[in-house]
This record gives sequence, C-alpha cells and structure tokens, in this order.
Amino acid sequence: MDERKLALLSLTAEQDKWSPYSKTRSTINEQPLSKDELDKTTQYWHATLYLCLGMLYLKENPLLREPLTKEHIKPRLLGHWGSDAGQSFTYIHFNRMIKKYDLEAFVISGPGHGAPGLLANFYLEGVYSETYPNKSEDVEGMQRFLKQFSFPGGIGSHMTPETPGSIHEGGELGYSISHAFGAVFDNPKTIALTIVGDGEAETGPLATSWHSNKFLNPITDGAVLPVLHLNGYKINNPTILSRVSEDELIKLFEGYGWTPYIVAGSNVDEMHQAMAGTVEKCVQEILAYQKEARESGKVFRPRWPMIILRSPKGWTAPRKNPGGQYLEGFWRAHQVPLTKVLTDPEELKTLEAWMRSYEPEKLFGKEGKLIPELRALAPDGNKRMSANPITNGGLLRRPLKMEKFQHFAIPVPKPGVTKAPSMANFAEYLEDIVRNNPTSFRVMGPDETESNKLSAIYKASKKVWVNGYLPEDEDGGNLEPQGRVMEMLSEHTVEGWLEGYILSGRHGMLNSYEPFIQIIASMVGQHAKWIEKCLEISWREQVSSLNILLTSTVWRQDHNGFTHQDPGFLDVVANKSPEVVRIYLPPDGNCLLSVMNHCFTSANYVNVIVADKQEHPQYLNMEDALAHCTKGLGIWDWASNDQGCEPDLVMASCGDTSTQESLAATALLRQHLPDLKIRFVNVVDLFKLMPNGYHPHGLTAAEYAAVFTNDKPCIFNFHSYPWLVHRLTYQREGQHLMHVRGYKEKGNIDTPLLLAIRNDADRFSLAMAAIDNLKGVLGNTGAAAREKLLAERIRCVSTAYETGMDPAEFLGWQWPL
Amino acid sequence: MDERKLALLSLTAEQDKWSPYSKTRSTINEQPLSKDELDKTTQYWHATLYLCLGMLYLKENPLLREPLTKEHIKPRLLGHWGSDAGQSFTYIHFNRMIKKYDLEAFVISGPGHGAPGLLANFYLEGVYSETYPNKSEDVEGMQRFLKQFSFPGGIGSHMTPETPGSIHEGGELGYSISHAFGAVFDNPKTIALTIVGDGEAETGPLATSWHSNKFLNPITDGAVLPVLHLNGYKINNPTILSRVSEDELIKLFEGYGWTPYIVAGSNVDEMHQAMAGTVEKCVQEILAYQKEARESGKVFRPRWPMIILRSPKGWTAPRKNPGGQYLEGFWRAHQVPLTKVLTDPEELKTLEAWMRSYEPEKLFGKEGKLIPELRALAPDGNKRMSANPITNGGLLRRPLKMEKFQHFAIPVPKPGVTKAPSMANFAEYLEDIVRNNPTSFRVMGPDETESNKLSAIYKASKKVWVNGYLPEDEDGGNLEPQGRVMEMLSEHTVEGWLEGYILSGRHGMLNSYEPFIQIIASMVGQHAKWIEKCLEISWREQVSSLNILLTSTVWRQDHNGFTHQDPGFLDVVANKSPEVVRIYLPPDGNCLLSVMNHCFTSANYVNVIVADKQEHPQYLNMEDALAHCTKGLGIWDWASNDQGCEPDLVMASCGDTSTQESLAATALLRQHLPDLKIRFVNVVDLFKLMPNGYHPHGLTAAEYAAVFTNDKPCIFNFHSYPWLVHRLTYQREGQHLMHVRGYKEKGNIDTPLLLAIRNDADRFSLAMAAIDNLKGVLGNTGAAAREKLLAERIRCVSTAYETGMDPAEFLGWQWPL
Repeated sequence: MDERKLALLSLTAEQDKWSPYSKTRSTINEQPLSKDELDKTTQYWHATLYLCLGMLYLKENPLLREPLTKEHIKPRLLGHWGSDAGQSFTYIHFNRMIKKYDLEAFVISGPGHGAPGLLANFYLEGVYSETYPNKSEDVEGMQRFLKQFSFPGGIGSHMTPETPGSIHEGGELGYSISHAFGAVFDNPKTIALTIVGDGEAETGPLATSWHSNKFLNPITDGAVLPVLHLNGYKINNPTILSRVSEDELIKLFEGYGWTPYIVAGSNVDEMHQAMAGTVEKCVQEILAYQKEARESGKVFRPRWPMIILRSPKGWTAPRKNPGGQYLEGFWRAHQVPLTKVLTDPEELKTLEAWMRSYEPEKLFGKEGKLIPELRALAPDGNKRMSANPITNGGLLRRPLKMEKFQHFAIPVPKPGVTKAPSMANFAEYLEDIVRNNPTSFRVMGPDETESNKLSAIYKASKKVWVNGYLPEDEDGGNLEPQGRVMEMLSEHTVEGWLEGYILSGRHGMLNSYEPFIQIIASMVGQHAKWIEKCLEISWREQVSSLNILLTSTVWRQDHNGFTHQDPGFLDVVANKSPEVVRIYLPPDGNCLLSVMNHCFTSANYVNVIVADKQEHPQYLNMEDALAHCTKGLGIWDWASNDQGCEPDLVMASCGDTSTQESLAATALLRQHLPDLKIRFVNVVDLFKLMPNGYHPHGLTAAEYAAVFTNDKPCIFNFHSYPWLVHRLTYQREGQHLMHVRGYKEKGNIDTPLLLAIRNDADRFSLAMAAIDNLKGVLGNTGAAAREKLLAERIRCVSTAYETGMDPAEFLGWQWPL
Repeated sequence: MDERKLALLSLTAEQDKWSPYSKTRSTINEQPLSKDELDKTTQYWHATLYLCLGMLYLKENPLLREPLTKEHIKPRLLGHWGSDAGQSFTYIHFNRMIKKYDLEAFVISGPGHGAPGLLANFYLEGVYSETYPNKSEDVEGMQRFLKQFSFPGGIGSHMTPETPGSIHEGGELGYSISHAFGAVFDNPKTIALTIVGDGEAETGPLATSWHSNKFLNPITDGAVLPVLHLNGYKINNPTILSRVSEDELIKLFEGYGWTPYIVAGSNVDEMHQAMAGTVEKCVQEILAYQKEARESGKVFRPRWPMIILRSPKGWTAPRKNPGGQYLEGFWRAHQVPLTKVLTDPEELKTLEAWMRSYEPEKLFGKEGKLIPELRALAPDGNKRMSANPITNGGLLRRPLKMEKFQHFAIPVPKPGVTKAPSMANFAEYLEDIVRNNPTSFRVMGPDETESNKLSAIYKASKKVWVNGYLPEDEDGGNLEPQGRVMEMLSEHTVEGWLEGYILSGRHGMLNSYEPFIQIIASMVGQHAKWIEKCLEISWREQVSSLNILLTSTVWRQDHNGFTHQDPGFLDVVANKSPEVVRIYLPPDGNCLLSVMNHCFTSANYVNVIVADKQEHPQYLNMEDALAHCTKGLGIWDWASNDQGCEPDLVMASCGDTSTQESLAATALLRQHLPDLKIRFVNVVDLFKLMPNGYHPHGLTAAEYAAVFTNDKPCIFNFHSYPWLVHRLTYQREGQHLMHVRGYKEKGNIDTPLLLAIRNDADRFSLAMAAIDNLKGVLGNTGAAAREKLLAERIRCVSTAYETGMDPAEFLGWQWPL
C-alpha cells in the first residue's frame, strides 16, 4: 500500500501543469479584448452552453420561464456535455477572426459527441432556422430545437448529415484532420478550423494524419488550424496527451511539423483573453505564410500554427455533484453530468440553478431570440462557418471534363487473342482527366500508383511533395509541390483526404492493393452511412462518388503470399445500404474503361472496382464492352456453343483472373466433351445478381432466368469468397444448381494458377466440377475426361514446384479454341 | 519551369542531413570495436548479405563455386532487398550486447518484406537447420535454404510462421511496436529488439503505438528497444520521416516520450563503430532504468532509449544499375534490384561481381558452414534471438487458474422471468480470473471496460497507467501502475498488445464496442492467417485463443445512432479459415459464462463473442445453459408448444436482443393464434448452421433437420446482417423456407425496439412474417391477427415519438405467456 502510494507520487511531480485548475497559461500573453468585448463574449458563450444543457435535458420550458419540474425533462437523458464548452469557446473565438480578417472558414468537430457545442452556435447564427424553418428563432422553435436532440424521431447526438455546416459527423473517431486537409486542398482561400479531441488524438488514424502538413501547398491550397482540445478525459480514463509533460507535448507537435500555442486554464476571463490573442496570432501567421508563398511563387513548408487548448472536462458544470463526486474536470462530465434529475429533487434543483447561472433571461429577448448586441458577434451570410457552401459540397460540384473514354480503347479484333495489361489504357484515360481538371480531381493511394501501373498519370502531373528533396529525385522520383497524385503510407490518411475532397465538391479516386483496403473497411462504412443519410435530406446536394480501385488482387500475390490475400472488402461493402454501394469487376481493359467512366460521372455512391494490374487476355472491343458493362452482365456468345438450343451447362465468371480460368475451363470442356452445350456468362456489375427490389441494379426473376436458366447447373468462378455469390442469389430459383468457386482462404506464395488450384478455382477444377454436376448427361465419357483433367492438374503443380515456373506459361493460354 | 526549380530549391536546404551519403553522424561518438572486432563484424554482416542475395536469385550454385550462369538463377525473381542490410546490421550489433550483458532478447521485424536480412542470421546461428534439418549448414542445405525462398512450394518472403524466432510476420504494416510491447508485458527480463520501417512508421497504427511507453511498468515488464530504420524510401516514394529536418525528427520522438539516438551514414566502418556504441548505450540505459525502478520499488516512466538508423536503401548494392539508374540509396532497390539478370548478360555479370564482393569463399568453410571465428560472434542456445522460447509462445503457456464458472451463475428459477444484466456475473468471473492469474492474464479495451459493465474487475486489479496522476484520480479513476486492465483509445494498439501477449504464451481478452471492432478487421484477419499457418507447422505449440468480446451492440445505440451500428465484423470473421474462427452469441448471462469459460480454455482460435451489456431477461439456469452451449444450439421446449407433434412453424433466434424479440413474437403468436404449433430454437454457436465438413462445428444434415425441419417455415431473428445466415445455410434442405430478419443498415437514434421495427426485426414484424408464411394453414384467423399486430406496431412507434419513451417500457416484457 505504501509502496503503491510512493509509486503514485513519483508520477505526479508535474501535476501542476496537467491540471486545468492551475494558473492560466498561454504562449501568447495579450489582452486583446476590451471589457465590453470580454463580457459579450462570455455572454454569447453562456447562451450556447445554456442551449447545450437544454438539448440534453429539456423537452418543454425551453427558456426556464417557469420553475423547472421533471415534467419538462426528457424521459431518457442522452448526449454528451464533456467537450461542449471547449468546442463552443473555440468556435466563438474564431468567429471574431472571421469578422476582423474577412476570412472564409468552416469547422470540423473531431469529438462529434460534443455536437451540442456547435449545434448551439449554428442555431444562434440563424442557419439552423433557415434550414429547418420550424426550428425558428423564437420560444417555440427553440423548444423544438432542444427537444429533437437525441429524441426518438429527432436528430442524433453527433454532427450528423442533418446538421447544416457539417461534413464530418465525428461518430467514429480519428478522421478530423485528414477530412480537414481534404477539404482545403485546391481551396486556397479556405481555413478549416479543426477541433481535435484528445481521446481522438490517441487513435492511429489521427496520430499519423498530423503529417498531412507535408502535402499542403501554401500557394494553391487553403489552411487547417487544428485546435487540440486537451479536455483531459475520455469515457472513463484520462487521456494520454493531457498527462505527459508539457515539454513532451510541445516537442511532439513541433516534431510533427507544427507550431503549437498553448492556452490552458479554467478562469473564464483569463481564458477568453488568452484564446483571443492566440487565435489571432495563428490567423496572422497563416495569412503571412500564404502571402509569402503566393507573392514569391515559392512553395515551402511552413511550420503552420496550431492551438493546444487545455480546459476542464465539462467546463462550467458544478465541480461536484450533490453526492460529492467530481463532475467538472473529471470523466464523470463526459456524458450527461447530472443523471438523476428525474428521480432526485436535489439533482433537479442543482440542474436548474446551473442552467439559470447562465442567465438566459438576459441573453434571449422576449420572443426567445438571441439579443442583437450578442448576435452581432457572429458573422453573417456565407461567412458563417455553418453556412459555408463547402459544407454542402454538391452545391459547388461541377462535372469532370473528360475526353470520351472510347478514345483510349484497346483494339480487340478477336476475343481472347490479344494480351494486354488492362491498366495501361485506363492510366492514359486518367492522365487525360488529371490534365483537364487541374484543380478538381486528385488520385490518392498509399504508395502504389506506380506499382499499380498507373504511372502514366505522371505525364500530366506528379505526386505532391512539400517535404525535403534530394538530387536522386530527378531520376524517376516523380515528385513536385503541386502534384495531383497524393501518396502516403496510410490508407486512413489518403482515404480521409479523398472523403474531405469530394464532400467539399470535388472528384477523385483511391487506388490501393486489394488486401489492405480492409484497413479502412470501417472508414468506408462510415462514409457510406453518411451518404445514405444525405439521400433523405432534401437540401444536401449530390457529391461525387467515392471511387475505390482495387488492384494487386488476391490472385496476384506471388511473393507476398497469404497475408496479402483478402478479397473480403466486397462483403463489407455489400453489407452497406444498396442505395449507395456499387461493385464492379471488369473482365478486361475496355470494360475497365467503360466502368471507370461511369463511376467518374456518378454521384453519391461508393464505387468499388476490382481489376488486376498484370497482362490479361482481352475479350471485348470497345463497343461490345460498353454494351456489356451497360447491361452489367451477359452471355458471351463467342465463348458459348449453345446457340439455338438449351445449354447443358452454364459456365459463369466474375473478375478478370476468374474469367480467364473459367474460359480456359470452358475450352477444356469443349475440347474433351465436344457435344456438351455450354453457355458462358460474365458478370461485371455484381449487384445484378441480387433480386430486383433488394438492390436498384438487381435483375428481375425473368431476366435472371434468361441468363442463368432455372434448371441447369452453373459453375460460377468468382473473384472473391464464393459464398458472397450465394448470399446474393439465395432467393433465386435454381440456386441449388449454382456452384460457386472462389478464394477459400487457402494461400501461399503461389502463382495465380497455383493459387487457383489450391482453392479449387482453376480451369481443371472448374471443368471437373462441371462434369461432376452432369453425371447423368455424360456418363463414362465424362469420367474419362475427368481423369485426364485431374492428371493434368497434378502435372501442373509438380512441374511448377520443380521448376519454379508459372504453370500458365507452360500450359499456354487456352482460348481461343 | 524555372519557378518549379526555385520551389524545389527552397525545399532542399537541409538535404545534407537527409542523405545517408553525408558524413557519418552519431549521437554517441565512441569507437568500441577493436580492429579485429570491426573486421569480423563486417565479415559476419557480409555473410548475411551474401545469403540475402542468394535467397533472391539462386536456385543452384549456392556458394558461387562455379561461375554464375542464368541456369543457377530462379525463373521468377521475387523478394525484397531494400531493408535487408539495415536489418541484419541491427541484429548483428544486438548480438554483441546479448553476449556482453547476458541478455534475453528476441527480434521483431516491422518491415517484414526485408525477411532475408533476418532469415540469413537465423540460418547462420543454426536455428534454421535445427528446426528444418534438411536446410543444414552445408552446401546442400544452403542450396535448399536459398531456393525455397519465394519459390512455389517454399516459404513466403516475410517473417512467416514457418520462420523460427518469429512472432510477427510484417505482411500488413503497422503493428511491430504494439506486438513488441505485448510480448514484454510481464516478462521483466526480456528485451524486444524492434525494427520499425520508415514506411511502416507512416501508418496510423504505428504512429500511435509509440505511446505504448506510457503503459509499461519498469519493475514487472521487460523493455522494447525500437530501431526506426530510416531507409529512405517506400515502394516508389521517399518516406516522410527521412525528409523532415533532424530537429523535427528528434523532437517528434522526444515528444512521444523516447530518448532518440541517431546513427546516420553509409561508410561501413564508421557505421559499425557508431552502431556498436549506440546500441551499447541504449542497453546500458535500459538496464539502469530497470535497476533503479526494481531496487527502489518505485514505478516511474523512463524516457526509454530508441535508435534512429539512417542508412541507404538497399545498402551495399551497386549505386547504379548498368543502365545508369540509381539503385542503392533509391527506391529502385526496394525489391529485386537487378531485374534483368536472366536476359541481360551485363546485369548477370554485375550480380556476380556484387555477390563475390562479399567474398563468400572467406566466410564459409569447405563444407559450406560459416567459419567458427565468425560464428563465435553470435550467442548460443536460447540466447540466440531466433531461439527465444517466447517466439514459440505455446511452449511457455500454462492453463489459466480459474474458479468453476458455475459459481458465478445467475439464479434463474423460471425461464424469461428474471431480468438481469448479463455482464454483471461475467464481470465477477473475470475479477476472479484476474486475481488468480496476476502475471499471465490481461484485459484490453479502447476505453470501454467501465461502459461495458465490466468494472468489477477493478476489485482485483485496476487499469495500468504509467503516466501522470492527479488527485481526482482517487475518486473512481481506477488507475495504478501495475494494473491488469489496459486501455488506450486505439483499437489497433490494444489489439496489437493482446496479440503480442498471447503469441508469447499468455492469455487475455479484448472488450470493445461492436461497431468499432471493424477498425481492426484487417488486423484480426492477419492474426487468423497467422494461426491458420501455424496449424501446419508441427513445432509451433498452441497459443491461447484471441478472445474478442463485443458489446454495446448494434441494437443498443440509443444516442449514438447510425454511425455506431455495424455488426458486420461477424462477416469478416466468417470469411477466415473455419479451422481457426469461432463465433458465439449467448442469449443470456449463464450462457455467456459458459461460452467465456470455453473460450478461455481454448487455443489457436479467434473467438468472437457478442453480448449486450444492458439488462435482459434470463432464460436458462446454469445447468441448462451449459448443456445448451455445449450443443451450440437447441430447441427451447419451455418456449415451444409443438411437443409430441410436428410444428407448423419454427421461430429461431441468435443473439440476446434478437432472442428477446423472437420470444416476444412467439408469445404474440401463441396469444393471437393459440392453435398454432410453434417450435422455438436458439443458436449460440453460429457455425453450427454450416454444413458438417465445411466447419468443424457444422451440423450434419440429419442433426440440422431434427432442429429446423426440412419442410416448415422458419422465421429466424439474427443479431447481425440477415444474409450471413443465408450464406451459412444455403446448402441446407429447406433453405427456401428460412426467412431471416436482422439489421438491414437502417438506423437512427432509436431504442432497441424502435430500431428493430425500422429493420423489420421486431416482435410484431416477426409474428407477421410467420403469419405471411402460413397463409395456407391460417386463412382468415391469420389475417385478423396480422391486422392487430400491425396496429400495435404503429401505436408503438407513434407513442415513442411523442413521449420519448422506450416502447419496451410501456409494452412490458411479453414472456412468460
């Protein structure tokens, strides 16, 4: 016991600086606010805090014009108080800068749980009422505004899509900084005021996103002003950064390349002065750096300013609850601070006294509107952060300028003869788009654009790099300070940039290795949820689709092996709302062009496109490819021999490597069993398989039967886990005749064909599966053919193991017949 | 053009310090190696580098005793050279410390792509040959050792499970530091030498994992010595950290709480001296901090040492290829540096000269074994990092000491009457386990152990916190320097700690909100792949299962709403190999106890357990719960009325909230349609649904039919996305009669019942679905009942919207009948 105490003591030596109750400390020591400004700022802040409590507690009596009774209280107390005061404090001080320096800005709230702090501001600025007229600036409107918060049928407790001025919900933590950077790229006038929670700051995605400053061009991009809110506590723990030494804290952010300014304390007047001076210093620095770069034309990497705001958790709440436990300045203030107001009269009294301490009667006029002297503190019109059109990016979105994709077609005189890398022509299409849209299109990726064979883009524009250069870079480094391609080895950061970029009205694409896209499965899910909600909100204009091109696929991991084999992102995406997700697996280069063109013109979707980067047989000329992709799936007559009669068998495929094996299997079958009538089907648009009504692209039962039949076996070779096809088709008539092969989580350092063999998804296995399902039709002929195929498969593996060669090489490509 | 040049220049001012070709620089300037030691160290290093090239290129002629021809070269050149030299360099220098200070250590290679650098060392130390006798220390063994690398049928190019000495494959990047910390927790004598790639360092998970040092107790835990390898380049880009100013670099790591030591350069002799001195300084500091803490009994947070090693990418390769392009010191050295050796005689010659420059004839004896003078540089026996038993943790694993879980049973006199929070009794069981296993069991979580109602653990042990303390912490902070619970708001870090902890032979559990477990979907997938491979390796002993308890489930997101609703982790897990994944959804508290007991005693699985943390009806007494969980699914007779006859209908459920609704639906049906014969089935072990043979737990067709029937409609209410059940049962006879309800990605700030209604998975919808599927049996009686149910559902929603109440409250709980 003593020992533990001793140990604790040795850890508390610096506690004076960790506590927001120590003397107010600020890097900038100025007193920029007059007494009148100071008082008004406090009053404005109090108005927002009053509304925050109203959101948490009140369904009636919004201005406490009657004594507070439990009948006025919501039956279920939901929402978060913890960071509201600090967030509102920050917002209000930045408003002063907008007015003084005529800035264009918007806000991102990392700790979205503290939404009341910003919702209150948005309401006081009038934007909320302009957007939702029944939440008007009067007593009734305020009652509705407060009641709807976290109330069944109302709005969620984050910065949800329903909130005007928001492009960042803050439900899942970690993406505030990357979203902010994404939104200011190519928006040179914009400043993103970005509040980062100290809980959020512990997440991996946030921890690395501070490095975004090495990718921001001070001439052509705007600026991000991060405010790290050292609120002190998470749900039930102190935060790491609030308990390290101040020396470490400052070094950490200087090390990240920022210039940190500290504002720490709890004394309201002192903190207002400190924050006012600090925010102004930061804004002046931002403007000065921009001026320097823009006037000189020289790109450099400023050590941009940031603010570290240390204030008590739940600031301005009672320090302790009636039971004597800490509230303000402790984790208990995280959610609803007084939880027993419905059952404990003393708590209800405490709440009433607390709410009245903000003096609502002095802040709101008779009709219930903020008094004009206070309203004058906030900007007007689109200068209000809540009204910046960037936050409804669809308003600003213009279509991409694109050459016809047909210009980039791969000549395919005959199906299956030409071999070509499907990416090559698409890369030229992309080069063209990059060239024609120099301020509204970016290509993101973790470090793989070259590896993914897309480097043709660099002819139009290189990779942005606002970090150090070396002479070697001239030898194929492909770096420049104003590039359109953005690469950082953080899928989280590049995805966050892209989301911010498109949510603010622009276009883009992420390219990534298929296996590691699962790293951002959750992020993409959150984005899909965001756009799904937006569909229900009439004033939200459509934004560009989030386009994710997956390559270096599961079948091509010759030396990376098992860890690099995960095609399961498709399952994750397929779980999201059918209204907003699309999955395409183009079988060849022309189909890839057609699909990508469609994706670049579409809006409000998450488009996932899977295409291998290596050389592949090409099947369709441009015209046929367009027709095939427009239908989304279809019978390939040139590969079928069931013309004019019922097929005995359907061979189907989805995915480029899978299509190659399926065609080779078809060739083997037709060679060994020439009497068999085979229909070959290829699927590009995966959701065609779902029943009509379950997904907007789903085929009707009749359309489905016309392709797959109801009563013939179908051997379906699928790019990903086979059961995804079963999940999509389980309601289809004849589904018991559907035999799906695909990746079954069996892998090593195999060539594509060896890997297919390991997973029973190779040409031999597919052909044998067909024979097994046609026993009645084929009899002994089938058995003989099957034996030959099996022997061939075994030979294939042993030769490969011996020689180290890819069996595809010594087998040759089996199409055309 | 000029402008761009100008811009570039302004970015290169500090390039002298970024280039490894500048003057050698080191924080520690000592010359600890004698001439003889220096020469031998270089020779040993050369032996490893020679083997690295051998792995990349050679299938024959391992010691170049014949002139090199293309017949000796592998047909497909795969693998990575880029970080091999730096990794081997680090390893060799640490070997000297092991011998000098008698250390116990092992190595983690973050950039697993550079496996050859460590594989070569493991081979030279003899461990590889001891593990795989045919890879013996002679010419033939060496030939087999080199050839197998990235060769069909051989081993992958990372630190795969087949590699003795490895617990970290390094395929997916970002987890080296968290794995290292996990492995040294409660291993006070162990040092984890941890090589972190500068590419990997850009990932989010790695960027935040540096903060692990705030959770390491210098008395009871070992130490991690990170070596950040500033190798300069990723696949095709410079790394961020290799191009920031040295001032920023040092501050960053001081800010993270480390003491960074720099070793930078390319001159081999100078670098050896610098590294030797620096590694020794670091080891001395580690030992001194440990001594201070252990002798005083005082826990403090040392600013632990770390090394920043800046060396050229592909160090010791030719600076340029025959084509004049940069190799060494540029990204082109990332993978195979000379790619045309099979077709370009000049490249082949360059390769031969390069390999011979290491003078293999002087390093290896006649029989092909490393000469004894060099072998003497490495440690022996288990002091070899490649032989540390920690890296085959199952060797060290001892069963948990556990009280019988039955002692913690919830009394359930009658099914469905008692209400209790299922977590409460489990928390006491956990408290007991924590108490009885004070050095081999840890509970990890992002910040939710309290929120997840598991805080009973704190009676046995609190949360580890080796960071600053404040007086408020005494008021329910539950922190202590030696706690067994570990919380940091980074799912990545806590998951990484847990993986490292169990891979090194201990036990643990992660508890997390269900929605955000998707953040680590990819990590868990990598772990599943690791253990799946281990099943094939005879010498790998079984490690404890990775137990993931998910709570705060999709159905309980009353104020968090849509962003917090994602039960899709189950789909991700179900895609992994059936040999290693298990999913359990206990319907009540006693089932939770039984399931968790099973999980804690199991090995080599990923166990995912989903259980709500709120109050629930309790159904089974302990005896019945154990029987039910042992079977994995079963008919609940007490809820059924089909005894002695064929049922008309099966009502099935999986998941606690889903079971409650399904039972309520059954009650409604029996109330409105008393003649209907209903069978009630509950599923705990999800994989029971899969066909036998597809998953070890799968039921046979007969077993399945005995429960679900083949010919009666089944209304199945599932916890997660409904199609997962279809995917598991698509091969079952009668699957077209299976109607699954679950979460369909429709959400807002709803109570559980309102959310169920929104997704058609509520009691009313389920009962109506049953009626719709029994039209032939029920006729008009059914239609009348259906109308009443529909009216009740509508009333339910409107009352909730008006009052803000949870409909479950005014409806009451509908069981027992």
